[in-house]
Amino acid sequence: MSEDKAMVIFQPSGRRGKVPKGISVIEASRLLGVDIETLCGEKRVCGKCLVRIEEGQFEKFGIQSARTHVSPWQAEEEKFITPQRREKGYRLGCAARVEDDILVFVPEASRAGKQLVSKAARDIYIEHNPSVQLYFVQVDPPSFEEPTGDFERICRVLERDFGLKNLSIDIFALRQLSGALRDGLWAVTVSVWNDREVVRIRPGKADRSYGLAIDVGTTTVAAYFCDLTSMEVVDTVSMMNPQCKYGEDVMARITYHMSTPQGLQRMSDDILAGINELIDRVIENTFPPGKKKKRIDQADETGQGPEEGKTYLRLTREDIEDIAIGFNTAMHHIFLSINPEYLGSAPFTPAIHRSLDIKARDLGIKINPSSYLFVLPIEAGFVGADNVGVLIAEEPYKHDENQLIIDIGTNGELVLGNRHKMISSSCATGPALEGAQITFGMRAAPGAIERIDIDPQTREVDYKVIGRDAWRNFSKPGEMKVKGICGSGILDLLAELYRTGIIVKSGAFNKKALEDHPRFRTNPDTEQPEFVLAWAAESSIGQDIVVTQKDIRQIQLAKGALYAGCKLMVKRMGLEKVDKVKIAGAFGTHVDRTKALVMGLFPDCEIAMIESVGNAAGDGCRAALLNVEKRAEANWCSRHVEYIELTLEETFQQDFVEALELPHTTDQFPHLKGIVPDEILNQ
Amino acid sequence: MSEDKAMVIFQPSGRRGKVPKGISVIEASRLLGVDIETLCGEKRVCGKCLVRIEEGQFEKFGIQSARTHVSPWQAEEEKFITPQRREKGYRLGCAARVEDDILVFVPEASRAGKQLVSKAARDIYIEHNPSVQLYFVQVDPPSFEEPTGDFERICRVLERDFGLKNLSIDIFALRQLSGALRDGLWAVTVSVWNDREVVRIRPGKADRSYGLAIDVGTTTVAAYFCDLTSMEVVDTVSMMNPQCKYGEDVMARITYHMSTPQGLQRMSDDILAGINELIDRVIENTFPPGKKKKRIDQADETGQGPEEGKTYLRLTREDIEDIAIGFNTAMHHIFLSINPEYLGSAPFTPAIHRSLDIKARDLGIKINPSSYLFVLPIEAGFVGADNVGVLIAEEPYKHDENQLIIDIGTNGELVLGNRHKMISSSCATGPALEGAQITFGMRAAPGAIERIDIDPQTREVDYKVIGRDAWRNFSKPGEMKVKGICGSGILDLLAELYRTGIIVKSGAFNKKALEDHPRFRTNPDTEQPEFVLAWAAESSIGQDIVVTQKDIRQIQLAKGALYAGCKLMVKRMGLEKVDKVKIAGAFGTHVDRTKALVMGLFPDCEIAMIESVGNAAGDGCRAALLNVEKRAEANWCSRHVEYIELTLEETFQQDFVEALELPHTTDQFPHLKGIVPDEILNQ
Repeated sequence: MSEDKAMVIFQPSGRRGKVPKGISVIEASRLLGVDIETLCGEKRVCGKCLVRIEEGQFEKFGIQSARTHVSPWQAEEEKFITPQRREKGYRLGCAARVEDDILVFVPEASRAGKQLVSKAARDIYIEHNPSVQLYFVQVDPPSFEEPTGDFERICRVLERDFGLKNLSIDIFALRQLSGALRDGLWAVTVSVWNDREVVRIRPGKADRSYGLAIDVGTTTVAAYFCDLTSMEVVDTVSMMNPQCKYGEDVMARITYHMSTPQGLQRMSDDILAGINELIDRVIENTFPPGKKKKRIDQADETGQGPEEGKTYLRLTREDIEDIAIGFNTAMHHIFLSINPEYLGSAPFTPAIHRSLDIKARDLGIKINPSSYLFVLPIEAGFVGADNVGVLIAEEPYKHDENQLIIDIGTNGELVLGNRHKMISSSCATGPALEGAQITFGMRAAPGAIERIDIDPQTREVDYKVIGRDAWRNFSKPGEMKVKGICGSGILDLLAELYRTGIIVKSGAFNKKALEDHPRFRTNPDTEQPEFVLAWAAESSIGQDIVVTQKDIRQIQLAKGALYAGCKLMVKRMGLEKVDKVKIAGAFGTHVDRTKALVMGLFPDCEIAMIESVGNAAGDGCRAALLNVEKRAEANWCSRHVEYIELTLEETFQQDFVEALELPHTTDQFPHLKGIVPDEILNQ
Repeated sequence: MSEDKAMVIFQPSGRRGKVPKGISVIEASRLLGVDIETLCGEKRVCGKCLVRIEEGQFEKFGIQSARTHVSPWQAEEEKFITPQRREKGYRLGCAARVEDDILVFVPEASRAGKQLVSKAARDIYIEHNPSVQLYFVQVDPPSFEEPTGDFERICRVLERDFGLKNLSIDIFALRQLSGALRDGLWAVTVSVWNDREVVRIRPGKADRSYGLAIDVGTTTVAAYFCDLTSMEVVDTVSMMNPQCKYGEDVMARITYHMSTPQGLQRMSDDILAGINELIDRVIENTFPPGKKKKRIDQADETGQGPEEGKTYLRLTREDIEDIAIGFNTAMHHIFLSINPEYLGSAPFTPAIHRSLDIKARDLGIKINPSSYLFVLPIEAGFVGADNVGVLIAEEPYKHDENQLIIDIGTNGELVLGNRHKMISSSCATGPALEGAQITFGMRAAPGAIERIDIDPQTREVDYKVIGRDAWRNFSKPGEMKVKGICGSGILDLLAELYRTGIIVKSGAFNKKALEDHPRFRTNPDTEQPEFVLAWAAESSIGQDIVVTQKDIRQIQLAKGALYAGCKLMVKRMGLEKVDKVKIAGAFGTHVDRTKALVMGLFPDCEIAMIESVGNAAGDGCRAALLNVEKRAEANWCSRHVEYIELTLEETFQQDFVEALELPHTTDQFPHLKGIVPDEILNQ
């Protein structure tokens, strides 16, 4: 490393590079394509550019980061940073100058360009049978002749009118009871969980109750805020998983736990705080912008979702009476503060499979204090509750046809089967398909290339970025403001590079064909060949946006793991081919079916039979929230899917190596005929 | 010093500190941890909280104290403070407010001494069937062929070997699971609650588990620490109910809640802290004196109670895996932070009758974190779980004979019945029988007269005080150090005064007979007749200890309420007489059966059929702790005892007035013949 440069790594994006010593953290962020808010133009007066300098030896990145690696604390920072936060390493990005290697965490609030997490709820059919149901109860006031206690008084009516027997009551709900009965003039609305336990009592008649379905991924967290009465999705909110700073993938986080005292606690606290933040957001969204929240006891009966216009629900946290939540297995254990160590080594045994009903308060989740979290059951060490969510949303076990369901997140989870049998497995795709570990990879945020089209003749690149409707060919260079490439762009990229003959089936650049092509060159620093996707003039970071040979290898590793997994599953089931392929996950939402096939993510299939099912894991959580029978179905699923440990399959290594290649021969991929030119496919 | 605070120093304890100006001296005493008697709950009616504001410059303490540093004299204080004492700076602590720095002297008589609580466990028969049971489980380690999760792995064995199905596991126990299985080389001891939920996992084989039965009275709290395996009572600890400082009886505490913001929270916090203190005490007692505690995972198998010798159990709080706890209804509500307001006004409706299973952690009770408290069910607003405890300990519903069970605490609770029918009621005995509202009444603490014998000829008084074995007649005056008279002494007192003709059946002093008796006189201040029990020379407070006509009236009111209640119950059941009388409660422990009959606490009964059953409420808690079926029995009891509101009975007023008289005529009390002289009984 040169004496006058320092390595700076930004988390959670993972962007990194050497920058001249002495520049500010904000200047470094610009050089490395990380967007940090700086409303005041770095005058140290807006306090928006808050960052945290991490302390420690980060072997993964090969650096030692320390707070002394930035310039000393400035008086102006005191206005924006409390002593507690200062203690934790918080600085203003414009005030702190880089003096040596650092790892910088950029908190969500400081990130410019809110990530587009497109995990919108799909329309799926769910029967209405929520775990928490409301009952309106009117009782006679007590008298000397009939002085029975308040709870027994309402239980009598609940049994007589609704057939509810042997109800218990949570201590927090019990504390509301006597007051609510008297405030409501002996009429109350009782929220009953699972026909078993009273979890809330409100005076008078209340018509609505609310719940959250939460899908916690390794990288993103999405929450659907639902009206439990109408089943409507009132709001959708999402955020980066705050644990990203401890490592991109699950193995990194397990390692963090094993190597860091209090590491598990820290990761658990962070995701809990994140979920509480999402809860705050959905509650704030039920108020008109700028209006101060105030406590009201009942939802406005005519209220509608905030996006629909004038009526606001004006809810409080107590109005959230149920949560259904799903995770992959490692996230599940970490969230619950269960030692995830044994998930990281053979035979990858989880602590528990079955679903859990946990009082939200026991985890510090701030909703109605008597309410429960339903934690979806998990299948195996590497196939978690998220996959159970996918299953109960897609219900392959109710069909005769063989469905292959691919859920591509930071890890790939595969299910194959029909009503007679289901098998599952996981494959280590790594985060490449989500834009990580790619030179100009980035999150799906404004400025990210999301679609690419390459002219097979000229090999000129056309592309579209998030935040701008017009493609490159219909824009002036300066209008594109491109910064990098996100997950869906990466898929397009590999397919287009292959289809147009820029790379060959092995993934290597077709140097012969590219000779003298203006976009193809060798990087003088790394001596690696690279292909320019966008010129510096089109970018907002003043650099050419390129894809390198190494990037292509990363993508190949991911797609190879996925393809090999699919192939082995099909073989295990004794099938020749699958009837249907469903692609789930944030990735699946944007996927171009044809290009997924071109890329060879999975075995050949009729293009019409490839379907994108969006965030099916989240849909499954929503199904469990709104229909209690889906919870039993989830438990059944988690124990009736046979888990296949792919790495134990005899031919796995060979299959994997073979699968690194791009599809070739029309024997292997008949459906690619006419899409990929014959001379490429059969080269 | 800030302008809004004043320094308050209490003597003789020397406790001091700054308190907000404007609070009463009593409130200041609480803040500074000084215990002053406040029997009436600061209503300025008991006069117990007498203090003296000192005048002068106290250089030692760096303050200037003056009588003008407290708020002006109140009319209500005149009743309790003579002009002479007023001159000397005496004030009621509840009436005088701190307005500037003061030095306060607390006279011995106002100090709340440490009460002797004798609530030892009796031998009662209890079947062994605790709610928490231990199971030793050995499982195969997981493999790739059989990678099932840890919990499902142990559940399989629990079902196969012990028939336990559909077990759930508490999140805190789940966090122990994976580590314990591996530490125990795939063998663990599982604690299962109610055949339903796993609440603890320990590596290897553990033979013991422990529980607490707690009886929370208005005045005292007693806890039996039990070995759930052997049923042995390992230790008994007790303390004053720390809520006493908010008022002596339940009504005073309900009033405190209604008149003081955060009052309920404060009282609840105090009793919870008290219970945690008892838990600490039992745990500390399992270690040799002076030895530092250290964490061990298993009880020493050969361990015995600390009092038995050399082997100590060396337990931790986590070794307490169950609690059964009983209260009267108001204490129940306050403990659980349930608004007790509606218990204080007609028709005295409780929030709930049935028993509650509450996670100890939800209340901040520090035992094994997954474990439950079983809260005994309550009968009615004034007949609580304590009485249910008495019932399941005494089981009158299993006998043909009609038993009258009297539990005299701060409130009197009565049950009458047999296997066919049971009725209950409560009567406002008030705290007189416990020493409150009596001029020299005090708690059962050293210096309190607990036994009295009066010579029928000379009417000379012999007595015994707590803390000294020798009676007055065998001691020198200065050795007695008497300070007052406690509950059991009061019972003796009234019986002896009557038997020896000092008072007549109406309760009035027999002035004719007492003429010229050196112990009988008229108080010059109050102009009330009084009888000297102990001379100033025998006392540690430098005053004659007397019983006044007003004191006798107070005792009569208490005994009248009790007698009238019993009489009405007998009538309600259509009986002539009862077959057996059982006296429970701390009071019952010390009671002289004959004197209770002489005093006329309850209708006439053969003396052999009067039985003291000690702390039956606590025994009931212990039964519920050690036998889960007793819990169901308790719930059955709580709903099958018919509660009679005595004050609504037509003849109650008249019965009550009649019952103020002492037993007279051998018609009414044939069993008093020979005990009380005929000329008195039939005067």
